[in-house]
Amino acid sequence: MALQSFIEVEPDSHFPIQNLPYGVFKPEPASMARPGVAIGEYVLDLSEISKAGLFNGPILKDSDCFLQPNLNKFLSLGRPAWKEARDMLQKLLSSNEATLRDNANLRQKSLVPMGKVEMLLPMEIGDYTDFFSSMHHAKNCGTIFRGPANPVPANWFHLPIAYHGRASSVVISGTDIVRPRGQFAPSGNSPPPFGPSQKLDFELEMAAVVGPGNELGKPIDVNEAADHIFGVLLMNDWSARDIQAWEYVPLGPFLGKSFGTTLSPWIVTLDALEPFACDSPKQDPQPLPYLAEKISKNYDISLEVQIKPAGKEDSCVVTRSNFKYLYWTLTQQLAHHTINGCNLRPGDLLGTGTISGPEPESLGCLLELTWNGQKPLSLDGFTRKFLDDGDEVTFTGFCKGNGYTVGFGTCSGKIVPSTP
Amino acid sequence: MALQSFIEVEPDSHFPIQNLPYGVFKPEPASMARPGVAIGEYVLDLSEISKAGLFNGPILKDSDCFLQPNLNKFLSLGRPAWKEARDMLQKLLSSNEATLRDNANLRQKSLVPMGKVEMLLPMEIGDYTDFFSSMHHAKNCGTIFRGPANPVPANWFHLPIAYHGRASSVVISGTDIVRPRGQFAPSGNSPPPFGPSQKLDFELEMAAVVGPGNELGKPIDVNEAADHIFGVLLMNDWSARDIQAWEYVPLGPFLGKSFGTTLSPWIVTLDALEPFACDSPKQDPQPLPYLAEKISKNYDISLEVQIKPAGKEDSCVVTRSNFKYLYWTLTQQLAHHTINGCNLRPGDLLGTGTISGPEPESLGCLLELTWNGQKPLSLDGFTRKFLDDGDEVTFTGFCKGNGYTVGFGTCSGKIVPSTP
Repeated sequence: MALQSFIEVEPDSHFPIQNLPYGVFKPEPASMARPGVAIGEYVLDLSEISKAGLFNGPILKDSDCFLQPNLNKFLSLGRPAWKEARDMLQKLLSSNEATLRDNANLRQKSLVPMGKVEMLLPMEIGDYTDFFSSMHHAKNCGTIFRGPANPVPANWFHLPIAYHGRASSVVISGTDIVRPRGQFAPSGNSPPPFGPSQKLDFELEMAAVVGPGNELGKPIDVNEAADHIFGVLLMNDWSARDIQAWEYVPLGPFLGKSFGTTLSPWIVTLDALEPFACDSPKQDPQPLPYLAEKISKNYDISLEVQIKPAGKEDSCVVTRSNFKYLYWTLTQQLAHHTINGCNLRPGDLLGTGTISGPEPESLGCLLELTWNGQKPLSLDGFTRKFLDDGDEVTFTGFCKGNGYTVGFGTCSGKIVPSTP
Repeated sequence: MALQSFIEVEPDSHFPIQNLPYGVFKPEPASMARPGVAIGEYVLDLSEISKAGLFNGPILKDSDCFLQPNLNKFLSLGRPAWKEARDMLQKLLSSNEATLRDNANLRQKSLVPMGKVEMLLPMEIGDYTDFFSSMHHAKNCGTIFRGPANPVPANWFHLPIAYHGRASSVVISGTDIVRPRGQFAPSGNSPPPFGPSQKLDFELEMAAVVGPGNELGKPIDVNEAADHIFGVLLMNDWSARDIQAWEYVPLGPFLGKSFGTTLSPWIVTLDALEPFACDSPKQDPQPLPYLAEKISKNYDISLEVQIKPAGKEDSCVVTRSNFKYLYWTLTQQLAHHTINGCNLRPGDLLGTGTISGPEPESLGCLLELTWNGQKPLSLDGFTRKFLDDGDEVTFTGFCKGNGYTVGFGTCSGKIVPSTP
């Protein structure tokens, strides 16, 4: 029989005792931000658990890491601390443990109904990097932007391509996204058109959150990279395709991306994902030695995107994909990132890039789904080439276990009109 | 007669009373970091001046902005606070003002010989953006990488192209730079070669430091952009040209840049640079309205790069350029950066890109100076295609005033071998 909590958790809840993802929240609008874990319909306030002296293992006993307004300090402590916290919390929340279950006062202080809290970004992000690790996405984008002859650049199968993203505009799920304005490619000799983007897109991604970093000049070995990854969350890397197409040669995407990137509030740990590990795709050609890992691991995480237009009651599923389609693994991404000596810091964010699957229904952005607007999507009573003002885009992700679900909750944002 | 300080300042010093650039330093290795301004051969400790109650103007009187370990809080206060501080400090340091001049105890506490202090990064950098604003550099790089037919991309004359850089690996002048390892373009069907970069380069840049930022979704008008720029410093955007050439299609530079970026310690304010303002180049085609500024300003800042090989006593001048060669102004860069709604934060860093002049002796990097290694530079008893281990690269920059110099000090770093 699976581990059970004394807190009632619906069978399809994303947050059973097997998950225990970490976030940062305010119980009341005027409260200080603090770390918590999700359990069923509640958030367990880790600052209260810490103050009650319940983190009493050798690493965490004297630590103030749960009295911080973000998770960075906890992230920096590394896997032994993460394991100690997880073991303690699973025990504390289990149905046969009295400590919290039978302490009404502590339950009252530490368990906050999820519907009442305000979620914040779980960490301070020093740097945000976005990879490009789905082969199907790379092929489709290459075909759309550069033609079908050689859609995937020569380097793609040799290294996990990435670019530096903008950390300041990473926002928490639920934040409105203002439609960006910018320049687009001109026709002939006319000046470039300027105005609100007409090709506003979502990008279905996940992102790894870095734990302990590395010193500048000291790369991380690919076989040790997993110890530097705390967990994973959902990420919408909103993209203005018309701005991007005009600006990106030769230095890559800039304003086409930096107007907003949305994160889901709960970081699901690699420990919680471990039961859903699966083989990563066979890599051909063989990666160079610094990218060749002893165990090459993906995770079977079902992903789904829904759009709810302004004024409609219901959302409409736009695409279904899966994390396991990624060609380059999280650990290869991290090892590649540091091979030149680049230093990572706790809380850094490594986006996977858009996760497209092999099927037409599993593409991870509207650029691919509508083939750059040429084939509008027919949805439930409406069509879309790109996003309209008022559209609310929601990502969900989950792993299906035996009798339980390890889920990511949702990552959502609504498009609001450009300010004139 | 020019304003003079009671502190003796050599005529060719970079730090007369007309300059007063801001930095962050430790007077002793065990001290807390604190803000200071450079004056002659001294650093004036602003934490001591603040504790002595000498910042007594309406904005700064009750502020703890000079009791911080970085300048971010002062940066966030904006131009009225910067002006108040500058007026007070110029008065305090002037030859006819007794307050500090005649107070031996306060002089003892607040004036630290520059040779004794450790300089630190002056601000915490949230995001670092690198532009590509020198036309000569864009033309030369385009010719080298893509051929002479259309060296400058079609978008270049319409917008200040930029990419997101890596904030974590920005270091202070004097920090060694470890030669990065990475992949290079393969020949034919062989796997990509891997190893220490063979084309390690400097890039002669300057960078603006952002003061008050903007809210996400709210662009900054180009005519108000100067109020969001505190000052400027020297920047060496070290580049591994072989890594960059193989990785940069289609998402731009990544590991070819992120192994290190060096900043000079002193931020020279726009107020100190104002006497050296000059017209910016005529822009043709006319920029779009959001980039068309009422006053389009460059600064006449002489720049020089020297290399000192391992074991040599003397440095050798490699190139001389000038900030005034930039095509896109700092204010246009900043306005463009925010036009999509992207938010800037105090302490953000906006690099200009390599500043190359029109003459062969004024090119801003070895890629251009040696035409990608095809024409080695003959220097004083040695030749260089790219940088060798042990090479120390030093940038200097200054503006020549009437009887005084407003200078930037130096920005230097030495190449150390890759760790195996």
